[in-house]
Amino acid sequence: MRIVHSACALLIGNELLNGKVRDENLHALATTLRGLGIPLTRALVLRDDPGELARELQHQMAQHDLIVTSGGVGPTHDDVTLSAVAEAFGVKCSVSTEMIQHLQRIYANRLTDGHLRMANIPEGAQLVVSPDVAWPTIVKGNVWMFPGVPELFRAKLASLRQHLRGPSEFHTRSVFTQLDEGELTALLDQLVSLHPEVEVGSYPKWFDPSYKTKITLDGLSEPAVETALQRLLDGLPPGEPQRVE
Amino acid sequence: MRIVHSACALLIGNELLNGKVRDENLHALATTLRGLGIPLTRALVLRDDPGELARELQHQMAQHDLIVTSGGVGPTHDDVTLSAVAEAFGVKCSVSTEMIQHLQRIYANRLTDGHLRMANIPEGAQLVVSPDVAWPTIVKGNVWMFPGVPELFRAKLASLRQHLRGPSEFHTRSVFTQLDEGELTALLDQLVSLHPEVEVGSYPKWFDPSYKTKITLDGLSEPAVETALQRLLDGLPPGEPQRVE
Repeated sequence: MRIVHSACALLIGNELLNGKVRDENLHALATTLRGLGIPLTRALVLRDDPGELARELQHQMAQHDLIVTSGGVGPTHDDVTLSAVAEAFGVKCSVSTEMIQHLQRIYANRLTDGHLRMANIPEGAQLVVSPDVAWPTIVKGNVWMFPGVPELFRAKLASLRQHLRGPSEFHTRSVFTQLDEGELTALLDQLVSLHPEVEVGSYPKWFDPSYKTKITLDGLSEPAVETALQRLLDGLPPGEPQRVE
Repeated sequence: MRIVHSACALLIGNELLNGKVRDENLHALATTLRGLGIPLTRALVLRDDPGELARELQHQMAQHDLIVTSGGVGPTHDDVTLSAVAEAFGVKCSVSTEMIQHLQRIYANRLTDGHLRMANIPEGAQLVVSPDVAWPTIVKGNVWMFPGVPELFRAKLASLRQHLRGPSEFHTRSVFTQLDEGELTALLDQLVSLHPEVEVGSYPKWFDPSYKTKITLDGLSEPAVETALQRLLDGLPPGEPQRVE
């Protein structure tokens, strides 16, 4: 089990930027990493441009100890993630006999030269197999390369859960109120200054009759989060909050 | 009407990275910009960290002639977009009497000091008003600052449509086939090399009985796109495609 302190997601594909496809993978990844206690500190949505991808990979690899990519691992001309990762590491792509065996098992007698292109992976990459997913995940250094198809992306999150953890678990409480953000600023400022170890979030909801603002308290120490929660509840006017989770 | 050649989106908020909120704004923005012929070439999802935001803003402002931000324009401690934009431009935030007038009109006798914090905007910023939205959009240089609340974000896209255009319109055709990507690589490679002015996209669908791959052809020249479409259709086997859009 490897401990990860900071993760970055690269969502790759022209289709995410020209509106043809709505990304579904960032939220699935964010939820999974949160559950593992791994802070996801940045995500980028990038075009299918190998040079641009390689530059961004190098830049983000220097700042994060986990990179998860989504998309661009298929066999067509616009699948450039594997070659960009190779370029970022200063290696070539070469044919992996282990990957060929996986492809032979998956495609059987339908296997084409097109499919076999997917066996061309960055030199030194590992194939991570998890019990419930037929397709292996290609991992080079700290870069985990996932397919963009949402069903496959979600299925492969299992392999992250098997191998990675954050430094510790997050504790979260949420308070829902009919006060709007403009009526809460003084109380929230007080919370932020008195509880520096707790992250205070404030999320307005404009078209929900049940509440106007959701306030969240997050931290690595459960007692610290509970103490901040008590101060928040004490500071709300009578009749509030609507609910606490 | 200003002509924009390259846009970048900054989606701002810890909640997008820790899984508390699923982003809805990138797709709405991507679709709108596409309709205007404006290429959206990159998007970033970033934390509520003013220093990090200011650095990224400066970096992206040097490479794009339109930046759209989503989130962080409310009145609470975690709303840091306006101050980060000011820092990126090397100016301060100061109270805008024009913005105070808008807030007075919107909140009337419910107006608090908390709400008035939202009148503290980057020096030299303009307030762009569109007929159907009560709230003005704050614009500093090429940076348009939108609220993160999806209903408000979408409503404000009207102001982009009023003021900005891309260099020209995109033409798009889509072909749906039961062939998988591995069976299409040779034909797609041929299309890409013979029609350099057309962008060829290939999108596998894994759990849809009606097709396995969607092929898209995009370009600025309608005849070029139609010629590439004809070559693609001629190259498909009998019984294909399933449909053309």
